Amino acid sequence: MVNIVVAGVGTIGKRVAEAVNKQDDMNLYGVADVSQTGGLRTVLSEDGPLHGTDLYASNQDGKENLEDQGFYVAGLLEDQLDEVDLVVDCTPPGIDEKNKENMYEPNDVKAVFQGGAPEDIAPVAFNADANYEDAKGKDFVKVVSCNTTSLSRTMSAVDEAFGVEEAVANLVRRGGDIPQDGRGPINSTIPVTDVPSHHGPDVQAVMPNLDIKTLAVKVPVTYGHVHMVNAELEENASEEEVKQAFRDQPRVNLEKAGEGYDSTSKLHEKMRDLHTPRSDMPEATIWEETITVEENTLYWIHMVHQEAIVVPDNVDAIRAMFEIEGKEESIRKTDEALGLR
Amino acid sequence: MVNIVVAGVGTIGKRVAEAVNKQDDMNLYGVADVSQTGGLRTVLSEDGPLHGTDLYASNQDGKENLEDQGFYVAGLLEDQLDEVDLVVDCTPPGIDEKNKENMYEPNDVKAVFQGGAPEDIAPVAFNADANYEDAKGKDFVKVVSCNTTSLSRTMSAVDEAFGVEEAVANLVRRGGDIPQDGRGPINSTIPVTDVPSHHGPDVQAVMPNLDIKTLAVKVPVTYGHVHMVNAELEENASEEEVKQAFRDQPRVNLEKAGEGYDSTSKLHEKMRDLHTPRSDMPEATIWEETITVEENTLYWIHMVHQEAIVVPDNVDAIRAMFEIEGKEESIRKTDEALGLR
Amino acid sequence: MVNIVVAGVGTIGKRVAEAVNKQDDMNLYGVADVSQTGGLRTVLSEDGPLHGTDLYASNQDGKENLEDQGFYVAGLLEDQLDEVDLVVDCTPPGIDEKNKENMYEPNDVKAVFQGGAPEDIAPVAFNADANYEDAKGKDFVKVVSCNTTSLSRTMSAVDEAFGVEEAVANLVRRGGDIPQDGRGPINSTIPVTDVPSHHGPDVQAVMPNLDIKTLAVKVPVTYGHVHMVNAELEENASEEEVKQAFRDQPRVNLEKAGEGYDSTSKLHEKMRDLHTPRSDMPEATIWEETITVEENTLYWIHMVHQEAIVVPDNVDAIRAMFEIEGKEESIRKTDEALGLR
Amino acid sequence: MVNIVVAGVGTIGKRVAEAVNKQDDMNLYGVADVSQTGGLRTVLSEDGPLHGTDLYASNQDGKENLEDQGFYVAGLLEDQLDEVDLVVDCTPPGIDEKNKENMYEPNDVKAVFQGGAPEDIAPVAFNADANYEDAKGKDFVKVVSCNTTSLSRTMSAVDEAFGVEEAVANLVRRGGDIPQDGRGPINSTIPVTDVPSHHGPDVQAVMPNLDIKTLAVKVPVTYGHVHMVNAELEENASEEEVKQAFRDQPRVNLEKAGEGYDSTSKLHEKMRDLHTPRSDMPEATIWEETITVEENTLYWIHMVHQEAIVVPDNVDAIRAMFEIEGKEESIRKTDEALGLR
Repeated sequence: MVNIVVAGVGTIGKRVAEAVNKQDDMNLYGVADVSQTGGLRTVLSEDGPLHGTDLYASNQDGKENLEDQGFYVAGLLEDQLDEVDLVVDCTPPGIDEKNKENMYEPNDVKAVFQGGAPEDIAPVAFNADANYEDAKGKDFVKVVSCNTTSLSRTMSAVDEAFGVEEAVANLVRRGGDIPQDGRGPINSTIPVTDVPSHHGPDVQAVMPNLDIKTLAVKVPVTYGHVHMVNAELEENASEEEVKQAFRDQPRVNLEKAGEGYDSTSKLHEKMRDLHTPRSDMPEATIWEETITVEENTLYWIHMVHQEAIVVPDNVDAIRAMFEIEGKEESIRKTDEALGLR
Repeated sequence: MVNIVVAGVGTIGKRVAEAVNKQDDMNLYGVADVSQTGGLRTVLSEDGPLHGTDLYASNQDGKENLEDQGFYVAGLLEDQLDEVDLVVDCTPPGIDEKNKENMYEPNDVKAVFQGGAPEDIAPVAFNADANYEDAKGKDFVKVVSCNTTSLSRTMSAVDEAFGVEEAVANLVRRGGDIPQDGRGPINSTIPVTDVPSHHGPDVQAVMPNLDIKTLAVKVPVTYGHVHMVNAELEENASEEEVKQAFRDQPRVNLEKAGEGYDSTSKLHEKMRDLHTPRSDMPEATIWEETITVEENTLYWIHMVHQEAIVVPDNVDAIRAMFEIEGKEESIRKTDEALGLR
Repeated sequence: MVNIVVAGVGTIGKRVAEAVNKQDDMNLYGVADVSQTGGLRTVLSEDGPLHGTDLYASNQDGKENLEDQGFYVAGLLEDQLDEVDLVVDCTPPGIDEKNKENMYEPNDVKAVFQGGAPEDIAPVAFNADANYEDAKGKDFVKVVSCNTTSLSRTMSAVDEAFGVEEAVANLVRRGGDIPQDGRGPINSTIPVTDVPSHHGPDVQAVMPNLDIKTLAVKVPVTYGHVHMVNAELEENASEEEVKQAFRDQPRVNLEKAGEGYDSTSKLHEKMRDLHTPRSDMPEATIWEETITVEENTLYWIHMVHQEAIVVPDNVDAIRAMFEIEGKEESIRKTDEALGLR
Repeated sequence: MVNIVVAGVGTIGKRVAEAVNKQDDMNLYGVADVSQTGGLRTVLSEDGPLHGTDLYASNQDGKENLEDQGFYVAGLLEDQLDEVDLVVDCTPPGIDEKNKENMYEPNDVKAVFQGGAPEDIAPVAFNADANYEDAKGKDFVKVVSCNTTSLSRTMSAVDEAFGVEEAVANLVRRGGDIPQDGRGPINSTIPVTDVPSHHGPDVQAVMPNLDIKTLAVKVPVTYGHVHMVNAELEENASEEEVKQAFRDQPRVNLEKAGEGYDSTSKLHEKMRDLHTPRSDMPEATIWEETITVEENTLYWIHMVHQEAIVVPDNVDAIRAMFEIEGKEESIRKTDEALGLR
């Protein structure tokens, strides 16, 4: 079995490490970091989901830091690279590039990078549903961001079924994740003034032929982005046909606002009531009532749980890079292990 | 001079009353309400901007309420209608209709209604810039809502200059006004699940030939809606030409995010720093950097101060209904009296 | 085994129902409600934690409501009362009183009420640690509110160990629960102007000899109240002795801010990282660094997860009322079944 | 007349500069800064309240910065110090100390520092009401922070009238000011884990004999801290006597929650409705209903507008340092010029 290390045990890293740990065809060799966070401490604690996992330091300073903060450090990540087949790099932007140059390339270790990494860090911008095949055998793959992932999943469902002539997607982004209490805004809406926003080209890295235009703002919420979408269809489609196309798409859910799920916090509550780990929602979730077709215009509004949505794609990227399974089987295995519907 | 009463001294009512009071060609005869709010108490207090204005009760129960709460009530509104030429009705939805039927129609009093009123309450949906002429001589006019006003002002500027083939505007609405501390959401984004949202048809009530599609969500902020807009132009336009068209439009401002005004709260602060009354911003304000043209697509993002934007249009509606002035002169007089740029 | 029904499947009700369901010495006979919420729908759904539990309607209108909304209703609660030994009544204030009068008393069914119920609804205001014995054999018991529960747990630990001469506790309350997106405030702090606040007397209902004074405000957060506490001790105590007294107290946790848990949202994240159901934290959690003794004054700051903290006490109340177990054994069984530390 | 420069045109600096500008016995010689903010740009703009005021650069880099950003810079602050009698230093912590050492001391220029400066930067911690005399003739004075100012004003009123044996004040602080959209928290309450908090000793710097204990948390609001206060009185006092003592105290207001002012945002709205500049509230405002006496315990809850409360004290500090007026006359002149009640 391939040995996987997750470097950077933050919002994404801790989730990917646990997801890798739940698969039966890959081995979580360890995690790596350079300093304490509450998250790192909790997941490794006696009651934590990664208790017993080896913790490596990403560098010598990090080793001292972590030891000062009371962690047992099994060694330097660098010294383990002979044993490691792939690193899922969830470190902050800037660090990922240096890691590639200083650790992964010299040691012939594959790596999966995240959405914040520069575009040219890997030859493939990856979304499991849209372009699984492109990652086959690659050494470096970048899993696209949460926003891009949700747009890729939903747009590819519509595009395959009916053709998308052009699309407009406007994004309402969360200010920070739940524990990021140092981030704002409080009581302010902040526009992204680079117009159109980078999210359109990001989707095009995955779906090169899609004509999509995006704008974005940031608002004072912690759980979930919301996208408002218009798509001009090439073929006629009924609302029911569109809903079916979404239902057939992996990792896309429809929820009825009218059944008591009419906001991001009520969808959050649904995940809590289902006892999903961390109340996570890895699926892109569309409010079913918003799916509307008028002439050739298709509208919908969906929610993106920014902390969780890319986790299954990270697992699939690993399978693709080692050619362990084909697309459908990988998605099936990942989803089953993660308890997705 | 025409005698004006403002009924319903809430968010809009108190501002319109003060705005009428500042004009030299109309007389604020009084205000009317049925119960205390902090706002009513403050504006009538010794240091308040409407100190000395007569307060009438909109009905007998309201008279007792107000007197119990320590207000001096000059009488019932109904008993004054012989003297009154027009009521600006800023009462809650439902009350406005009854007022029209029971008070304004029987007493031959003109009335201006607000955006929350039903569409058929008046023959004209009014925006000063877009259709001033339509209100001339009318007995009943509805000033459109804050969102519609901002879209009408900006869209009509673009449409007149370059033609708008079709437009998409997605709205990020505030949860409540500053003093409305009972309104949510806290930490949630709430989609409007009627899709497309009513804002498109609302704009079409003012600009019947505009092809515009809208979606909307609500977020936890109190000062300002934000609209993300795409418009397909009929004619070529440079970004500079578009900016000029906006600069030429009354009650539309451009502000540079890069000059320190890159969020709704920083624009709020600008109004505070300028000492505008209540830190209000009656202009629709576009972040200049967001004005972008790519082929025929024009993008921009603007902010709407929901409490203030319709105030000047209410004053202009009065002038139009009594044919006191033509459009340009009315706008000029209103803006000068209100200190708009 | 005693048959338990939970009436009112809201924030508290759904949690209590699941907690009862996890005990091996009581039987969840069913739940009862009158209309849809997202929570009710989710917990009864195929993947939900109460799937298969019988749903009763609390009245005839409720039956029609629920059926219209697509629920299968097993019947009226009233018709089941022969089989039911106790109802945990989590209905809104006002309903609980009517239920007692119309259903529980005439049918000789015991009932547990919640913190929002009137003081005189039951002869005992209950907190498992502070006065388990008082509930023995009683027909009606009121489990005190989340704020009172946390103060009773922490104060009784200190009072038993060192004696509390007098205490001041000032409360910073959350505006609404996570899914309550209609509740405010946004960007406002709202004082409770009844001074001192009712929380002091509420604690005294459980600990009659405690001299405690409280004030309270409400702020824009959804997960957790925070209490700032000063207590004048009768006996000398070192900080370490105080910490030990808290560690020895059931359902009270110490967490170190310095270990990455320095806010309510970081404690929330800890619960998420531990995969506790709903990311709940039924323990009162004290930030360890805030425990400070200066002369006879003891200070601390603790957090209360308002949705979850009373759940174990509801279970213990049932055991006490039927005299199934003594205090220590009941607390032990409850905590083990719920996975508390 | 004394020549005053305000260095650091942020939240406090811009307000102090305008306040100095409104006095007839001191001259605003200029303002100084090192880089753009929206606030600096607005107040100096054509419609701004400081239009025409000379802008100096605090250092050479700052000069280039400001000129690059389109400002006209009249020169370096350092080169003006021959003409300047006093600098009100509102620069960030750390800068103030260097300014004192490198500019004010070598050039024999007096300086007023703000609450964030280190304790030993000046021999006097100043609050106009509590210790005006102590600043007479001094070269360096530190005006205490917003929280300390409000506690000094209210506590000294009570202490002088009835004697305060001991007091507990627990603080609920705002996360950031209105334009500080980069500051959190969103949906989190953050305790100050240094216990007791520094606010107690800060008040004691002004009122050395006061026994006061404080705790503090931070919450997601932008306009106003709230303090919950208990004071044990030495002498009996009726609630009416306490209210009168507060009414007699300069810069302390009572407002009735029951008259429509029952939250920080409703008090904010009152300031907006009164058209106070920036909707500022320089007075400490007590919710009148919260003033409660039970035996010897006095309770109250007050609000602090953190942006504005220290502004009048800065003006008074200048008068005291040059012995221009005595305490009562200075307070009277300042308040009249600022339009305080």
